[in-house]
Amino acid sequence: MDLRGVFPPIPTPFRDGAVDTAALAANCERWMGTGLRGLVVLGSNGEAPLLDDAESDRVIAAARERVPAGRLLIAGVARESTAGTVSAAARAGALGADAVLVRTPAFFKTLLTGDALTRHYAAVADAAPVPVLLYNFTALTGVTLPVSAAARLADHPNIIGMKESGSDIAFISALIDETPDDFSVLAGSAPVFYASLVSGAAGGILALASAVPNLCVELFDLVAAGRLEEARSLQRRLTPLARLLTRVHGVPGLKAALDIAGYAGGDPRPPLLPAGPAAVEEIRKGMEAVHAPA
Amino acid sequence: MDLRGVFPPIPTPFRDGAVDTAALAANCERWMGTGLRGLVVLGSNGEAPLLDDAESDRVIAAARERVPAGRLLIAGVARESTAGTVSAAARAGALGADAVLVRTPAFFKTLLTGDALTRHYAAVADAAPVPVLLYNFTALTGVTLPVSAAARLADHPNIIGMKESGSDIAFISALIDETPDDFSVLAGSAPVFYASLVSGAAGGILALASAVPNLCVELFDLVAAGRLEEARSLQRRLTPLARLLTRVHGVPGLKAALDIAGYAGGDPRPPLLPAGPAAVEEIRKGMEAVHAPA
Amino acid sequence: MDLRGVFPPIPTPFRDGAVDTAALAANCERWMGTGLRGLVVLGSNGEAPLLDDAESDRVIAAARERVPAGRLLIAGVARESTAGTVSAAARAGALGADAVLVRTPAFFKTLLTGDALTRHYAAVADAAPVPVLLYNFTALTGVTLPVSAAARLADHPNIIGMKESGSDIAFISALIDETPDDFSVLAGSAPVFYASLVSGAAGGILALASAVPNLCVELFDLVAAGRLEEARSLQRRLTPLARLLTRVHGVPGLKAALDIAGYAGGDPRPPLLPAGPAAVEEIRKGMEAVHAPA
Amino acid sequence: MDLRGVFPPIPTPFRDGAVDTAALAANCERWMGTGLRGLVVLGSNGEAPLLDDAESDRVIAAARERVPAGRLLIAGVARESTAGTVSAAARAGALGADAVLVRTPAFFKTLLTGDALTRHYAAVADAAPVPVLLYNFTALTGVTLPVSAAARLADHPNIIGMKESGSDIAFISALIDETPDDFSVLAGSAPVFYASLVSGAAGGILALASAVPNLCVELFDLVAAGRLEEARSLQRRLTPLARLLTRVHGVPGLKAALDIAGYAGGDPRPPLLPAGPAAVEEIRKGMEAVHAPA
Repeated sequence: MDLRGVFPPIPTPFRDGAVDTAALAANCERWMGTGLRGLVVLGSNGEAPLLDDAESDRVIAAARERVPAGRLLIAGVARESTAGTVSAAARAGALGADAVLVRTPAFFKTLLTGDALTRHYAAVADAAPVPVLLYNFTALTGVTLPVSAAARLADHPNIIGMKESGSDIAFISALIDETPDDFSVLAGSAPVFYASLVSGAAGGILALASAVPNLCVELFDLVAAGRLEEARSLQRRLTPLARLLTRVHGVPGLKAALDIAGYAGGDPRPPLLPAGPAAVEEIRKGMEAVHAPA
Repeated sequence: MDLRGVFPPIPTPFRDGAVDTAALAANCERWMGTGLRGLVVLGSNGEAPLLDDAESDRVIAAARERVPAGRLLIAGVARESTAGTVSAAARAGALGADAVLVRTPAFFKTLLTGDALTRHYAAVADAAPVPVLLYNFTALTGVTLPVSAAARLADHPNIIGMKESGSDIAFISALIDETPDDFSVLAGSAPVFYASLVSGAAGGILALASAVPNLCVELFDLVAAGRLEEARSLQRRLTPLARLLTRVHGVPGLKAALDIAGYAGGDPRPPLLPAGPAAVEEIRKGMEAVHAPA
Repeated sequence: MDLRGVFPPIPTPFRDGAVDTAALAANCERWMGTGLRGLVVLGSNGEAPLLDDAESDRVIAAARERVPAGRLLIAGVARESTAGTVSAAARAGALGADAVLVRTPAFFKTLLTGDALTRHYAAVADAAPVPVLLYNFTALTGVTLPVSAAARLADHPNIIGMKESGSDIAFISALIDETPDDFSVLAGSAPVFYASLVSGAAGGILALASAVPNLCVELFDLVAAGRLEEARSLQRRLTPLARLLTRVHGVPGLKAALDIAGYAGGDPRPPLLPAGPAAVEEIRKGMEAVHAPA
Repeated sequence: MDLRGVFPPIPTPFRDGAVDTAALAANCERWMGTGLRGLVVLGSNGEAPLLDDAESDRVIAAARERVPAGRLLIAGVARESTAGTVSAAARAGALGADAVLVRTPAFFKTLLTGDALTRHYAAVADAAPVPVLLYNFTALTGVTLPVSAAARLADHPNIIGMKESGSDIAFISALIDETPDDFSVLAGSAPVFYASLVSGAAGGILALASAVPNLCVELFDLVAAGRLEEARSLQRRLTPLARLLTRVHGVPGLKAALDIAGYAGGDPRPPLLPAGPAAVEEIRKGMEAVHAPA
């Protein structure tokens, strides 16, 4: 499975409190008109922790219809229990996901040792009907799958890569260096996309790519073509907006950016609060600046 | 509702991977033969994040049968979404829980501001059919409901108290000081039980109380009787075991202690690993020491 | 040496950038008219890290003249190197300090293991001409002398006690429980003074006691007399001001409080900035509230 | 001043507890036979926090004699007080340092706001007789000069660059992007050297370069020549040793590596403990592996 390229972890639109699968499908159709390698549903930006299992299934099914063969549909299936994750992966596979993205469990932090996480991932990969991507999101989970454990798991025939959401390039580089060449490391943070690519990352799963897909794809292509000066310049242009849509305003900000870009964004689910007017205005300016740089 | 006293947040026994409601019921019956004020089901020590909704319901139902009138059954109902928490609280109430314990959501850390948490708790309390207890477990969640927000929420007619699992006595004291006298602050960490009680806490929800209920009740009674020297001495005796069953070995250690004490403990659910032989031996010695102090 | 009671870690007044020993002496004389057990010079609140050795010596000498026999003068002497700390302790002893307070070194955090710290303190205590107090200030140093190391060091004949500046009452209680009865644990944070005393602390080294010495002494005396309800009530009254003078506004705020109380406070040394007008006003109200409770 | 290239922050050798200036001079002479751009004395790896002012002066003077014109001698001069830093910078300039490296103050963490740090650095740069380099070492200090403050300070005519010791490539990139082109950002962590260079860093101040100077210079040259594949490969070879000499074993490990490489390393000053035999053996293997890759 060729994971090289850019994937947006897409938001989940709601209408009257329910998942709006029609809006989701329309968004997906439009994204599939860009150079994106595929889509990731049910990640953090998809508010997956706020959806129940039936809603999660509807999201996968709706996206599957709009992601053509040749593009990849990846579904987040992390649960706190191994059994729950296995079950979610089985459902995702049955609904047509090409691969599953498995964030580390998070709750029992002190007990989630490298050994416990390795057993967890091996059990999920043994059972999953489709390939598995490992996934660290330490800033939110407080848990880190260590490089040594990732390197061991990379030998599992059903584990094909890893998303790393941190910006520690020493950690990202170590993941790349200590796993086989056919194991794909994907950047999970847009501000480190250029540096990750030149360090050997296969691509990125980037919230920013929901809002400005073609610019993210352009950055990927520039690095692939060895046009590093232009790539650095584009990265520099993208970084401020990337920050606004993740670290500063998070999912509500990303949804506001989708609204600005003509996608269906809308409000997040409580307890998340919608982006306020000042945030929306800041994001609007950030969107303008990225398209019309000074 | 009188929350003064000691509550154990009880583990959930499994058999062949399923919730063992018979063993759970037997444990509850035995606990109800002690001086415990009641039981808390579906807390962290109950591995609630590893159970699905149907399993959670069975736990509440099984416990309810063994907790007589006059004792309290409190059910953990935290979910990441407000709607999911409301729904879990409704089910808990329907199944006979006397109150619900609502840990803060944890995943979207940077977005869970005091304002977002306040709206979340108000919505849950508005909808819940039984009284609500707030709950901070910052060490695991990375999220803290601030004292100022707790103080505002304490005015809600359906919010009756709060469990605070930290050991920062300045924070615990501030909660006690800045909430009304009829708002019950419960210590969530056994090593700070004595200091919390003498600072005005109403009682405790203590993992240690699953393993040695009567000693925890004795500590409560000694403080209530003003016999502080004896209370301090007993606290000092209990603290090392409390650490073993929480900070050092966590839920697997607590379950091992239940096995040693003749309750049904057993193994935790993956990804949690059972306590190893060295841990079990350390816990056995800790149990002996607490019963037969030097 | 009887360490029971209250000690303020006194600020260092400056005039035209130099240590103002006359103002310092006048402050000390006034403090010695209260029930304080003694004074601590050259702590964090004395801006010790911003003074050179000659200035430090002048501070000790000036204070020594105003602290009569029967009261204790304790001097902070922490340096990053063991040799520098030994030298500073020797000078403090020669200048008449009754004891020295030795904060953990801080810079080489990852290398300052329990073993390294134990050797450091043993070397300082071996050489010091006066008794030594251990001292954790983890919030500023990022380094913690563990309870087990403190317990070992407590057996050293020239180590008589420890200041612990955290508010983790489990940690404070463990220090008290695992050290001999003649080893004095002193609270270093005013909001935990009551809880520490009822847990067996010998007293406190409290920034707040620079600004309102007699109220801190009253709290100590109430606990000593077993009048716990009154003590809790007084603690509750003192806590908000204590927070303003430490966590919220720090040394500049404490100096502003001294100015308000008629002591010589003044500006801190750069890079510290003086408390701004809003902070000063907030502190003024806090001072009024503590003296004239609602 | 052209800061492009590699600088080792050199250790300080001791003999019988005193600075061994003869050994230091011999080390410097040998380093000057490599392609290093210059030397940094009195950094963290030079155990600067463990030296007094007179010792610091001797280190600068000894190094100055062996660093020829055309190479740069940079001296660390950070102190906690602004006045102390100004004074140390003046002495360093008088002793012939070409520039001074000014780590952020660290002790009064909560008070060291962007504004306080900006005033501190501006005052130091106003007074310093030679150009100033800013310096973040957040892992040890807990303090971060924010990008926005660095960008403002970059306009000061006497501030020419910055060392950033973290491995957050988003932060490093932001420093590069938001400062003028003639402001030199230097990587302070060898595992991120390649990624920093391809992101626009001018060079590096790398502990690793004390032990294997020419390999670090080779990495710099490969990136400068656009030979990125070879550069990545060399980075991958260097990273494990870099970790051993910094994160894993710190200054004592770096000194052991110098001994292995035939430089004068020796023991660190207490409270630091020398690297034990197992650490030395691990470092020896790491040194062998870097020179004779598989």
